[in-house]
Amino acid sequence: MNESNNQIINQLSQRKSIRQFTGQNVSNQALELILKTAQRCPTSINGQQISLVYTKDKEKIKQIAKICGGQMQVETADVFITIVVDFNRTSFAVEQAGEIQQIDKSAEGVLVGAVDAGIMLNAIQISAESLGYGTTAIGAVRNDPEAMIELLNLPTKTFPIVGTTIGFATKEAKEAPLKPRVPLESFAFKDTYNDKKVKDGVLKYEQDMKKYREENNMDYLQSYCTQTATYYKNIYFRKITQNYENQGFAFKD
Amino acid sequence: MNESNNQIINQLSQRKSIRQFTGQNVSNQALELILKTAQRCPTSINGQQISLVYTKDKEKIKQIAKICGGQMQVETADVFITIVVDFNRTSFAVEQAGEIQQIDKSAEGVLVGAVDAGIMLNAIQISAESLGYGTTAIGAVRNDPEAMIELLNLPTKTFPIVGTTIGFATKEAKEAPLKPRVPLESFAFKDTYNDKKVKDGVLKYEQDMKKYREENNMDYLQSYCTQTATYYKNIYFRKITQNYENQGFAFKD
Repeated sequence: MNESNNQIINQLSQRKSIRQFTGQNVSNQALELILKTAQRCPTSINGQQISLVYTKDKEKIKQIAKICGGQMQVETADVFITIVVDFNRTSFAVEQAGEIQQIDKSAEGVLVGAVDAGIMLNAIQISAESLGYGTTAIGAVRNDPEAMIELLNLPTKTFPIVGTTIGFATKEAKEAPLKPRVPLESFAFKDTYNDKKVKDGVLKYEQDMKKYREENNMDYLQSYCTQTATYYKNIYFRKITQNYENQGFAFKD
Repeated sequence: MNESNNQIINQLSQRKSIRQFTGQNVSNQALELILKTAQRCPTSINGQQISLVYTKDKEKIKQIAKICGGQMQVETADVFITIVVDFNRTSFAVEQAGEIQQIDKSAEGVLVGAVDAGIMLNAIQISAESLGYGTTAIGAVRNDPEAMIELLNLPTKTFPIVGTTIGFATKEAKEAPLKPRVPLESFAFKDTYNDKKVKDGVLKYEQDMKKYREENNMDYLQSYCTQTATYYKNIYFRKITQNYENQGFAFKD
């Protein structure tokens, strides 16, 4: 194990979300390499209940940006990939075996799809970043799932759960400092969860982020507690349950 | 972009789940590097609503294996990491800002936690694999969430959603052939989802997997359709909704 020669540890340790793009084209060859590399990631029971819809069409990307609440980071991306939970594929497979799929109508199915989507998202981003591109995960496809479903022509038993931008980072975005994380000892626990360490970690992080903002002249950023409160005191995306149900899912059992 | 020199593309393209371990020790130094590297992965709104509980304690790993339905691949792993959805951390942060967290009581919150868990899981596995270890994602922590919650001492607003093994692969496991995936054109779509390609892809994959089993003397493996049906004709993990609710979550709005 030689840490310094390990491109993977190096890349992952330096990862940051990129929200400003040069507009330079991501080649079709690179995009295909990203897609096929990411496809090697694991899926629960090898069910492969994830599909991707990618677009480089500027007009479509603009529509997606609008659905996501008008995000400039989406609008200016060269590629947008929607990660789609796909129990339509598995349903057809189950039918081929003479059975009827039930898992999509359960909390377990919803969770499998969501966790697998996260795995795929990370694999896409790491692949893209290894080729020199920048990315940001976009949860805001859930801002208006109905509109995404219509735009991407998604059938029942599928759900557009998260997306990612891909593009060339601007120099400024590339050189931005790494944002701290909560202290490692408040994030990863040996054997059992430690509530006190979690809370101490939040308080320490609040200080670390204050220092980070000061050192980097980023006074415009909110503190961790304030930003988290701004989002999480509300249920900022509604209609999720209804949209899941409309697509044939159920969170039960 | 030089594909052949790209360790990341190379590693991800060769990834496979490792279910047989030599029993060799994963050093604490390596484990810490894996944890801190993975922590750099993105989380929704930088909320950091994921915590990890790792164990190298053989007795505890045995207990986890039992909770997971008696899985030998868990029992023989050197390290087990449980990925915990952690809205306890964010709840404390929101309180610091004088507000009350609502997001944990919504479908959006459940999805954010699950997607972020998948992202973290993949980052852990890719980091571990870059150091020469093998891993397999373990969804079966959801076989008995109550038991996991008790074992890991998880408070309300947290959920043990998925886990991963880490260990040294046996020679046999390391040299096993790569399992095919559904055809790329049935997995990744330009601009809009294509139902026909998905279904054609399942039928093609059924043939590809037949060939794979024959070529590798793996007649003991089920076909994709049969295996998917075996799992998905049932809701194989029950009590998920109840357990989420017991932990203070709700899938609504």
